[in-house]
Amino acid sequence: MSDLRALTDRAAIRDVLADYCRALDRMDLAALAALFTRDCEVAFGPDPRLTARGRDDLERSMARMWRWRRTAHHLGQVRIWFDGPDHARAESYVLAWHETSDGRPAVLHGVYRDRLRRTDEGWRLSHRAMEMNAAEGAFHVPIPPVERALPPKGWCAPEGLDG
Amino acid sequence: MSDLRALTDRAAIRDVLADYCRALDRMDLAALAALFTRDCEVAFGPDPRLTARGRDDLERSMARMWRWRRTAHHLGQVRIWFDGPDHARAESYVLAWHETSDGRPAVLHGVYRDRLRRTDEGWRLSHRAMEMNAAEGAFHVPIPPVERALPPKGWCAPEGLDG
Amino acid sequence: MSDLRALTDRAAIRDVLADYCRALDRMDLAALAALFTRDCEVAFGPDPRLTARGRDDLERSMARMWRWRRTAHHLGQVRIWFDGPDHARAESYVLAWHETSDGRPAVLHGVYRDRLRRTDEGWRLSHRAMEMNAAEGAFHVPIPPVERALPPKGWCAPEGLDG
Repeated sequence: MSDLRALTDRAAIRDVLADYCRALDRMDLAALAALFTRDCEVAFGPDPRLTARGRDDLERSMARMWRWRRTAHHLGQVRIWFDGPDHARAESYVLAWHETSDGRPAVLHGVYRDRLRRTDEGWRLSHRAMEMNAAEGAFHVPIPPVERALPPKGWCAPEGLDG
Repeated sequence: MSDLRALTDRAAIRDVLADYCRALDRMDLAALAALFTRDCEVAFGPDPRLTARGRDDLERSMARMWRWRRTAHHLGQVRIWFDGPDHARAESYVLAWHETSDGRPAVLHGVYRDRLRRTDEGWRLSHRAMEMNAAEGAFHVPIPPVERALPPKGWCAPEGLDG
Repeated sequence: MSDLRALTDRAAIRDVLADYCRALDRMDLAALAALFTRDCEVAFGPDPRLTARGRDDLERSMARMWRWRRTAHHLGQVRIWFDGPDHARAESYVLAWHETSDGRPAVLHGVYRDRLRRTDEGWRLSHRAMEMNAAEGAFHVPIPPVERALPPKGWCAPEGLDG
Protein backbone atom coordinates (compact mmCIF):
# COMPACT_ATOMS: atom_id res chain seq x y z
CA MET A 1 0.00 0.00 0.00
CA SER A 2 1.38 3.44 -0.87
CA ASP A 3 2.08 5.88 1.95
CA LEU A 4 -0.59 8.23 0.64
CA ARG A 5 -3.18 5.48 0.42
CA ALA A 6 -2.38 4.38 3.97
CA LEU A 7 -2.73 7.93 5.30
CA THR A 8 -6.02 8.46 3.50
CA ASP A 9 -7.36 5.15 4.78
CA ARG A 10 -6.25 5.94 8.33
CA ALA A 11 -8.10 9.25 8.17
CA ALA A 12 -11.22 7.53 6.85
CA ILE A 13 -11.09 4.92 9.61
CA ARG A 14 -10.66 7.58 12.28
CA ASP A 15 -13.75 9.29 10.87
CA VAL A 16 -15.78 6.09 11.30
CA LEU A 17 -14.63 5.81 14.91
CA ALA A 18 -15.55 9.44 15.56
CA ASP A 19 -18.94 9.10 13.88
CA TYR A 20 -19.76 6.16 16.13
CA CYS A 21 -19.32 8.28 19.26
CA ARG A 22 -21.21 11.17 17.74
CA ALA A 23 -24.17 8.94 16.83
CA LEU A 24 -24.11 7.27 20.23
CA ASP A 25 -24.14 10.50 22.23
CA ARG A 26 -27.05 11.69 20.07
CA MET A 27 -28.75 8.27 20.21
CA ASP A 28 -29.05 8.28 16.44
CA LEU A 29 -28.97 4.50 16.38
CA ALA A 30 -29.72 4.12 12.66
CA ALA A 31 -26.67 6.27 11.87
CA LEU A 32 -24.67 4.25 14.38
CA ALA A 33 -25.62 0.88 12.89
CA ALA A 34 -24.81 2.12 9.37
CA LEU A 35 -21.15 2.42 10.39
CA PHE A 36 -20.95 -1.37 10.67
CA THR A 37 -20.89 -4.05 7.99
CA ARG A 38 -24.13 -5.94 7.40
CA ASP A 39 -22.56 -9.06 8.92
CA CYS A 40 -20.97 -7.25 11.86
CA GLU A 41 -20.25 -8.91 15.18
CA VAL A 42 -20.22 -6.73 18.27
CA ALA A 43 -19.43 -7.90 21.79
CA PHE A 44 -18.68 -5.34 24.49
CA GLY A 45 -18.37 -8.31 26.83
CA PRO A 46 -19.53 -11.91 27.17
CA ASP A 47 -22.96 -10.96 28.61
CA PRO A 48 -25.50 -11.65 25.81
CA ARG A 49 -27.07 -8.24 26.39
CA LEU A 50 -23.75 -6.71 25.32
CA THR A 51 -23.53 -8.57 22.01
CA ALA A 52 -25.12 -8.13 18.58
CA ARG A 53 -24.90 -9.60 15.09
CA GLY A 54 -25.82 -7.51 12.08
CA ARG A 55 -27.04 -3.94 11.88
CA ASP A 56 -30.65 -4.46 12.97
CA ASP A 57 -29.68 -6.47 15.98
CA LEU A 58 -27.05 -3.87 16.89
CA GLU A 59 -29.53 -1.03 16.60
CA ARG A 60 -31.97 -2.87 18.89
CA SER A 61 -29.25 -3.78 21.34
CA MET A 62 -27.80 -0.29 21.65
CA ALA A 63 -31.22 1.02 22.73
CA ARG A 64 -30.00 0.03 26.20
CA MET A 65 -27.99 3.26 26.21
CA TRP A 66 -31.19 5.17 26.85
CA ARG A 67 -30.95 4.03 30.45
CA TRP A 68 -28.33 6.78 30.78
CA ARG A 69 -29.68 10.30 31.03
CA ARG A 70 -26.75 11.66 29.00
CA THR A 71 -23.44 10.36 27.68
CA ALA A 72 -20.15 11.75 26.33
CA HIS A 73 -17.75 9.41 24.53
CA HIS A 74 -14.34 11.06 24.25
CA LEU A 75 -11.94 9.26 21.93
CA GLY A 76 -8.27 9.40 22.75
CA GLN A 77 -5.36 7.81 20.89
CA VAL A 78 -6.13 5.51 17.95
CA ARG A 79 -3.81 2.80 16.61
CA ILE A 80 -4.50 1.30 13.18
CA TRP A 81 -2.87 -1.71 11.50
CA PHE A 82 -3.63 -2.89 7.97
CA ASP A 83 -4.07 -6.55 6.99
CA GLY A 84 -3.91 -6.19 3.22
CA PRO A 85 -5.46 -3.33 1.24
CA ASP A 86 -9.08 -3.76 2.40
CA HIS A 87 -8.84 -4.91 6.01
CA ALA A 88 -7.67 -3.14 9.12
CA ARG A 89 -7.55 -3.51 12.86
CA ALA A 90 -7.90 -0.54 15.19
CA GLU A 91 -7.52 0.02 18.90
CA SER A 92 -8.81 3.26 20.37
CA TYR A 93 -8.97 4.66 23.85
CA VAL A 94 -12.31 6.01 25.03
CA LEU A 95 -13.27 7.93 28.11
CA ALA A 96 -16.97 7.09 28.19
CA TRP A 97 -18.82 9.37 30.58
CA HIS A 98 -22.40 8.44 31.46
CA GLU A 99 -24.97 9.85 33.83
CA THR A 100 -27.47 7.60 35.55
CA SER A 101 -31.15 8.45 35.42
CA ASP A 102 -30.84 9.84 38.95
CA GLY A 103 -27.83 12.00 38.14
CA ARG A 104 -24.77 10.04 39.23
CA PRO A 105 -21.66 9.88 37.00
CA ALA A 106 -20.58 6.47 35.70
CA VAL A 107 -17.27 6.51 33.88
CA LEU A 108 -15.60 3.86 31.77
CA HIS A 109 -11.90 4.11 30.87
CA GLY A 110 -12.04 1.74 27.96
CA VAL A 111 -10.43 0.54 24.77
CA TYR A 112 -12.33 -0.37 21.60
CA ARG A 113 -10.75 -3.26 19.70
CA ASP A 114 -12.04 -3.25 16.16
CA ARG A 115 -11.75 -4.89 12.80
CA LEU A 116 -12.76 -2.89 9.75
CA ARG A 117 -13.35 -3.71 6.09
CA ARG A 118 -13.40 -1.52 3.00
CA THR A 119 -16.87 -1.80 1.46
CA ASP A 120 -18.82 -0.06 -1.30
CA GLU A 121 -20.01 2.34 1.39
CA GLY A 122 -16.48 3.06 2.63
CA TRP A 123 -14.67 1.61 5.66
CA ARG A 124 -17.08 -0.14 8.00
CA LEU A 125 -16.69 -1.88 11.36
CA SER A 126 -16.98 -5.65 10.99
CA HIS A 127 -16.05 -6.57 14.59
CA ARG A 128 -16.07 -4.50 17.75
CA ALA A 129 -14.95 -5.73 21.15
CA MET A 130 -14.10 -3.77 24.25
CA GLU A 131 -11.77 -3.94 27.21
CA MET A 132 -11.46 -1.59 30.10
CA ASN A 133 -8.55 -0.14 32.00
CA ALA A 134 -10.86 0.95 34.79
CA ALA A 135 -14.32 2.14 35.78
CA GLU A 136 -15.50 4.79 38.20
CA GLY A 137 -18.64 5.80 40.04
CA ALA A 138 -21.85 4.08 39.04
CA PHE A 139 -20.38 2.18 36.08
CA HIS A 140 -20.76 -1.56 36.69
CA VAL A 141 -21.19 -3.06 33.21
CA PRO A 142 -19.24 -6.35 33.01
CA ILE A 143 -16.60 -5.36 30.42
CA PRO A 144 -13.44 -7.50 30.43
CA PRO A 145 -10.34 -5.81 31.88
CA VAL A 146 -7.22 -4.95 29.92
CA GLU A 147 -4.48 -7.40 30.83
CA ARG A 148 -2.02 -5.69 33.17
CA ALA A 149 1.25 -7.33 34.22
CA LEU A 150 1.83 -7.95 37.93
CA PRO A 151 4.85 -6.51 39.73
CA PRO A 152 7.90 -8.77 40.02
CA LYS A 153 8.39 -10.65 43.29
CA GLY A 154 9.74 -8.43 46.01
CA TRP A 155 8.70 -5.16 44.38
CA CYS A 156 8.13 -2.40 46.96
CA ALA A 157 6.26 0.84 46.43
CA PRO A 158 8.52 3.92 46.61
CA GLU A 159 7.94 5.93 49.77
CA GLY A 160 6.79 9.51 49.95
CA LEU A 161 6.26 10.01 46.23
CA ASP A 162 2.60 10.81 46.66
CA GLY A 163 3.03 12.55 50.02
CA MET B 1 -8.85 18.74 -3.86
CA SER B 2 -6.09 16.16 -4.06
CA ASP B 3 -5.83 13.54 -1.31
CA LEU B 4 -2.46 14.93 -0.25
CA ARG B 5 -3.76 18.49 -0.08
CA ALA B 6 -6.74 17.35 1.99
CA LEU B 7 -4.51 15.49 4.43
CA THR B 8 -2.15 18.43 4.81
CA ASP B 9 -5.06 20.80 5.36
CA ARG B 10 -6.63 18.48 7.91
CA ALA B 11 -3.36 18.38 9.84
CA ALA B 12 -3.09 22.18 9.72
CA ILE B 13 -6.67 22.57 10.96
CA ARG B 14 -6.08 20.12 13.81
CA ASP B 15 -3.05 22.20 14.78
CA VAL B 16 -5.21 25.32 15.03
CA LEU B 17 -7.69 23.48 17.26
CA ALA B 18 -4.85 22.24 19.48
CA ASP B 19 -3.22 25.66 19.68
CA TYR B 20 -6.50 27.14 20.88
CA CYS B 21 -6.60 24.82 23.90
CA ARG B 22 -2.91 25.38 24.60
CA ALA B 23 -3.33 29.16 24.57
CA LEU B 24 -6.47 28.96 26.68
CA ASP B 25 -4.94 26.81 29.40
CA ARG B 26 -1.98 29.22 29.51
CA MET B 27 -4.26 32.26 29.29
CA ASP B 28 -2.18 33.60 26.43
CA LEU B 29 -5.19 35.43 25.03
CA ALA B 30 -3.31 37.30 22.31
CA ALA B 31 -2.10 33.97 20.90
CA LEU B 32 -5.63 32.61 21.24
CA ALA B 33 -7.23 35.51 19.36
CA ALA B 34 -4.64 35.25 16.58
CA LEU B 35 -6.05 31.80 15.70
CA PHE B 36 -9.27 33.46 14.53
CA THR B 37 -10.02 35.51 11.43
CA ARG B 38 -10.23 39.27 11.91
CA ASP B 39 -13.99 39.11 11.28
CA CYS B 40 -14.58 36.06 13.47
CA GLU B 41 -17.85 35.35 15.21
CA VAL B 42 -17.76 33.33 18.39
CA ALA B 43 -20.76 32.26 20.43
CA PHE B 44 -20.38 29.59 23.11
CA GLY B 45 -24.06 30.14 23.81
CA PRO B 46 -26.76 32.79 23.43
CA ASP B 47 -25.72 34.72 26.59
CA PRO B 48 -24.04 37.93 25.36
CA ARG B 49 -21.15 37.34 27.75
CA LEU B 50 -20.38 34.17 25.79
CA THR B 51 -20.18 35.87 22.40
CA ALA B 52 -17.56 37.94 20.59
CA ARG B 53 -16.95 39.51 17.19
CA GLY B 54 -13.44 40.09 15.94
CA ARG B 55 -10.11 39.37 17.60
CA ASP B 56 -10.03 42.27 20.08
CA ASP B 57 -13.51 41.59 21.33
CA LEU B 58 -12.70 37.88 21.65
CA GLU B 59 -9.54 38.58 23.61
CA ARG B 60 -11.48 40.83 26.00
CA SER B 61 -14.31 38.34 26.31
CA MET B 62 -12.11 35.34 27.05
CA ALA B 63 -10.61 37.16 30.03
CA ARG B 64 -13.60 35.66 31.87
CA MET B 65 -11.64 32.40 32.00
CA TRP B 66 -9.48 33.90 34.75
CA ARG B 67 -12.36 33.24 37.11
CA TRP B 68 -11.14 29.62 37.02
CA ARG B 69 -8.05 28.88 39.08
CA ARG B 70 -6.78 26.40 36.50
CA THR B 71 -8.14 24.72 33.38
CA ALA B 72 -7.30 21.74 31.16
CA HIS B 73 -8.93 21.47 27.73
CA HIS B 74 -8.50 17.93 26.39
CA LEU B 75 -9.44 17.54 22.74
CA GLY B 76 -10.86 14.24 21.63
CA GLN B 77 -12.02 13.19 18.17
CA VAL B 78 -12.07 15.81 15.41
CA ARG B 79 -14.22 15.66 12.26
CA ILE B 80 -13.40 17.95 9.35
CA TRP B 81 -15.39 18.63 6.19
CA PHE B 82 -14.26 20.84 3.30
CA ASP B 83 -16.52 23.31 1.50
CA GLY B 84 -14.31 24.07 -1.47
CA PRO B 85 -10.53 24.51 -1.32
CA ASP B 86 -10.39 27.34 1.23
CA HIS B 87 -13.28 26.67 3.61
CA ALA B 88 -13.85 23.94 6.14
CA ARG B 89 -16.15 22.94 8.96
CA ALA B 90 -14.91 21.07 12.00
CA GLU B 91 -16.51 19.39 14.97
CA SER B 92 -14.32 18.43 17.89
CA TYR B 93 -14.99 16.85 21.25
CA VAL B 94 -13.54 18.57 24.28
CA LEU B 95 -13.34 17.51 27.89
CA ALA B 96 -12.94 20.92 29.48
CA TRP B 97 -11.84 20.61 33.08
CA HIS B 98 -11.95 23.74 35.24
CA GLU B 99 -11.30 24.44 38.89
CA THR B 100 -13.25 27.12 40.71
CA SER B 101 -11.40 29.76 42.71
CA ASP B 102 -12.23 27.77 45.85
CA GLY B 103 -10.97 24.47 44.46
CA ARG B 104 -14.05 22.63 43.16
CA PRO B 105 -13.94 20.82 39.80
CA ALA B 106 -16.28 22.01 37.06
CA VAL B 107 -16.31 19.82 33.98
CA LEU B 108 -17.81 20.38 30.56
CA HIS B 109 -18.25 17.51 28.12
CA GLY B 110 -18.56 19.65 25.04
CA VAL B 111 -18.32 19.85 21.29
CA TYR B 112 -16.79 22.76 19.37
CA ARG B 113 -18.57 23.46 16.08
CA ASP B 114 -16.32 25.53 13.89
CA ARG B 115 -15.95 27.08 10.50
CA LEU B 116 -12.45 27.78 9.24
CA ARG B 117 -10.99 29.73 6.32
CA ARG B 118 -7.63 29.57 4.61
CA THR B 119 -6.00 32.99 4.97
CA ASP B 120 -2.57 34.52 4.33
CA GLU B 121 -1.73 33.51 7.89
CA GLY B 122 -2.87 29.91 7.38
CA TRP B 123 -6.14 28.28 8.44
CA ARG B 124 -8.05 30.44 10.90
CA LEU B 125 -11.31 30.02 12.81
CA SER B 126 -14.03 32.24 11.36
CA HIS B 127 -16.94 30.92 13.46
CA ARG B 128 -16.95 28.99 16.70
CA ALA B 129 -20.05 27.71 18.47
CA MET B 130 -20.37 25.14 21.19
CA GLU B 131 -22.76 22.48 22.37
CA MET B 132 -22.50 20.20 25.33
CA ASN B 133 -23.22 16.56 25.92
CA ALA B 134 -23.13 17.09 29.66
CA ALA B 135 -21.66 19.03 32.56
CA GLU B 136 -20.47 17.98 35.99
CA GLY B 137 -19.68 19.51 39.34
CA ALA B 138 -19.57 23.28 39.53
CA PHE B 139 -19.97 23.89 35.79
CA HIS B 140 -23.15 25.88 35.18
CA VAL B 141 -22.40 28.00 32.11
CA PRO B 142 -25.49 28.09 29.85
CA ILE B 143 -24.13 26.22 26.82
CA PRO B 144 -26.78 24.68 24.55
CA PRO B 145 -27.14 20.89 24.77
CA VAL B 146 -26.37 18.48 21.94
CA GLU B 147 -29.62 17.20 20.48
CA ARG B 148 -30.22 13.67 21.73
CA ALA B 149 -33.06 11.52 20.40
CA LEU B 150 -35.68 10.29 22.88
CA PRO B 151 -36.40 6.58 23.32
CA PRO B 152 -39.27 5.15 21.28
CA LYS B 153 -42.60 4.71 23.01
CA GLY B 154 -42.72 1.71 25.27
CA TRP B 155 -38.93 1.42 25.60
CA CYS B 156 -37.91 -0.24 28.88
CA ALA B 157 -34.48 -0.18 30.50
CA PRO B 158 -32.83 -3.62 30.59
CA GLU B 159 -32.71 -5.07 34.08
CA GLY B 160 -29.61 -5.96 36.03
CA LEU B 161 -27.10 -4.72 33.48
CA ASP B 162 -25.58 -2.23 35.91
CA GLY B 163 -26.12 -4.41 38.98
CA MET C 1 10.74 17.75 3.84
CA SER C 2 7.95 16.81 1.42
CA ASP C 3 4.36 17.11 2.60
CA LEU C 4 3.89 13.36 2.27
CA ARG C 5 7.02 12.60 4.27
CA ALA C 6 5.93 15.02 7.00
CA LEU C 7 2.48 13.41 7.22
CA THR C 8 3.91 9.91 7.36
CA ASP C 9 6.39 10.94 10.04
CA ARG C 10 3.67 12.65 12.07
CA ALA C 11 1.60 9.47 11.97
CA ALA C 12 4.60 7.38 13.04
CA ILE C 13 5.34 9.74 15.93
CA ARG C 14 1.73 9.67 17.07
CA ASP C 15 1.94 5.87 17.08
CA VAL C 16 4.95 6.02 19.40
CA LEU C 17 3.05 8.31 21.78
CA ALA C 18 0.05 5.98 21.73
CA ASP C 19 2.18 2.87 22.26
CA TYR C 20 3.72 4.47 25.35
CA CYS C 21 0.31 4.83 27.01
CA ARG C 22 -0.72 1.34 25.96
CA ALA C 23 2.43 -0.20 27.42
CA LEU C 24 2.11 1.86 30.60
CA ASP C 25 -1.51 0.90 31.27
CA ARG C 26 -0.54 -2.76 30.75
CA MET C 27 2.70 -2.35 32.73
CA ASP C 28 4.64 -3.88 29.88
CA LEU C 29 7.74 -1.93 30.87
CA ALA C 30 10.09 -3.62 28.41
CA ALA C 31 7.82 -2.55 25.55
CA LEU C 32 7.61 0.92 27.08
CA ALA C 33 11.39 1.33 27.36
CA ALA C 34 11.87 0.13 23.77
CA LEU C 35 10.02 3.26 22.58
CA PHE C 36 12.91 5.42 23.79
CA THR C 37 16.41 5.89 22.37
CA ARG C 38 19.22 4.05 24.16
CA ASP C 39 20.55 7.38 25.45
CA CYS C 40 17.15 8.75 26.45
CA GLU C 41 16.65 11.28 29.21
CA VAL C 42 13.33 11.28 31.01
CA ALA C 43 12.31 13.69 33.76
CA PHE C 44 8.67 13.93 34.80
CA GLY C 45 9.84 16.47 37.35
CA PRO C 46 12.96 17.47 39.29
CA ASP C 47 12.53 14.76 41.95
CA PRO C 48 15.24 12.13 41.25
CA ARG C 49 12.65 9.37 41.55
CA LEU C 50 10.91 10.89 38.52
CA THR C 51 14.00 10.85 36.29
CA ALA C 52 15.79 8.20 34.26
CA ARG C 53 18.65 7.89 31.77
CA GLY C 54 18.71 5.09 29.25
CA ARG C 55 16.25 2.27 28.70
CA ASP C 56 17.24 0.04 31.62
CA ASP C 57 17.08 2.86 34.11
CA LEU C 58 13.74 3.95 32.70
CA GLU C 59 12.31 0.45 32.95
CA ARG C 60 13.41 0.22 36.60
CA SER C 61 12.13 3.69 37.38
CA MET C 62 8.69 3.19 35.86
CA ALA C 63 8.12 0.19 38.14
CA ARG C 64 6.86 2.85 40.57
CA MET C 65 3.60 2.83 38.58
CA TRP C 66 2.69 -0.47 40.23
CA ARG C 67 1.79 1.54 43.32
CA TRP C 68 -1.41 2.37 41.41
CA ARG C 69 -4.00 -0.37 41.29
CA ARG C 70 -5.00 0.56 37.75
CA THR C 71 -4.29 3.40 35.32
CA ALA C 72 -5.75 4.85 32.11
CA HIS C 73 -3.67 7.30 30.08
CA HIS C 74 -5.91 9.10 27.59
CA LEU C 75 -4.03 11.13 24.99
CA GLY C 76 -5.65 14.25 23.66
CA GLN C 77 -4.31 16.72 21.12
CA VAL C 78 -0.76 16.25 19.83
CA ARG C 79 1.44 18.99 18.33
CA ILE C 80 4.55 18.02 16.38
CA TRP C 81 7.35 20.24 15.04
CA PHE C 82 10.27 19.02 12.95
CA ASP C 83 13.86 20.17 13.44
CA GLY C 84 15.38 18.82 10.25
CA PRO C 85 14.49 15.46 8.66
CA ASP C 86 15.36 13.21 11.61
CA HIS C 87 14.46 15.20 14.70
CA ALA C 88 11.11 16.33 16.08
CA ARG C 89 9.55 17.88 19.12
CA ALA C 90 6.09 16.93 20.31
CA GLU C 91 3.67 18.22 22.90
CA SER C 92 0.71 16.08 23.82
CA TYR C 93 -2.11 16.44 26.29
CA VAL C 94 -2.78 13.52 28.59
CA LEU C 95 -5.58 12.83 31.02
CA ALA C 96 -3.83 10.35 33.25
CA TRP C 97 -6.30 8.56 35.50
CA HIS C 98 -4.90 6.47 38.34
CA GLU C 99 -6.46 4.53 41.18
CA THR C 100 -4.69 4.26 44.53
CA SER C 101 -4.22 0.87 46.12
CA ASP C 102 -7.19 1.64 48.36
CA GLY C 103 -9.47 2.66 45.52
CA ARG C 104 -9.32 6.45 45.35
CA PRO C 105 -9.03 8.25 41.98
CA ALA C 106 -5.93 10.35 41.35
CA VAL C 107 -6.06 12.35 38.14
CA LEU C 108 -3.36 14.28 36.34
CA HIS C 109 -4.24 16.78 33.62
CA GLY C 110 -0.81 16.86 32.04
CA VAL C 111 1.25 17.65 28.99
CA TYR C 112 4.11 15.50 27.70
CA ARG C 113 6.95 17.56 26.20
CA ASP C 114 9.07 15.32 24.04
CA ARG C 115 11.98 15.22 21.66
CA LEU C 116 12.14 12.36 19.18
CA ARG C 117 14.79 11.06 16.79
CA ARG C 118 14.54 8.86 13.71
CA THR C 119 16.59 5.71 14.38
CA ASP C 120 17.11 2.35 12.70
CA GLU C 121 14.16 1.13 14.80
CA GLY C 122 11.91 4.01 13.72
CA TRP C 123 11.05 7.20 15.61
CA ARG C 124 12.05 6.96 19.26
CA LEU C 125 11.70 9.30 22.25
CA SER C 126 15.06 10.82 23.18
CA HIS C 127 13.76 13.25 25.84
CA ARG C 128 10.54 13.29 27.79
CA ALA C 129 9.52 15.95 30.28
CA MET C 130 6.12 16.71 31.73
CA GLU C 131 4.11 19.66 32.94
CA MET C 132 0.66 19.74 34.40
CA ASN C 133 -2.33 21.97 33.98
CA ALA C 134 -3.91 20.55 37.12
CA ALA C 135 -4.31 17.54 39.37
CA GLU C 136 -7.32 16.09 41.17
CA GLY C 137 -8.10 13.73 43.99
CA ALA C 138 -5.22 11.69 45.40
CA PHE C 139 -2.66 12.79 42.79
CA HIS C 140 0.21 14.57 44.56
CA VAL C 141 3.28 13.78 42.43
CA PRO C 142 5.47 16.91 42.19
CA ILE C 143 5.15 17.62 38.45
CA PRO C 144 5.92 21.21 37.42
CA PRO C 145 2.90 23.33 36.47
CA VAL C 146 2.23 24.72 33.00
CA GLU C 147 2.96 28.44 32.98
CA ARG C 148 -0.31 30.34 33.07
CA ALA C 149 -0.49 34.11 32.67
CA LEU C 150 -1.97 36.16 35.50
CA PRO C 151 -4.95 38.47 34.96
CA PRO C 152 -4.15 42.12 34.25
CA LYS C 153 -4.40 44.54 37.15
CA GLY C 154 -7.94 45.46 37.97
CA TRP C 155 -9.50 42.44 36.27
CA CYS C 156 -12.84 41.49 37.83
CA ALA C 157 -14.67 38.19 37.44
CA PRO C 158 -17.94 38.53 35.53
CA GLU C 159 -20.97 38.13 37.77
CA GLY C 160 -23.62 35.48 37.52
CA LEU C 161 -22.05 33.57 34.63
CA ASP C 162 -21.82 30.39 36.67
CA GLY C 163 -25.03 30.99 38.61
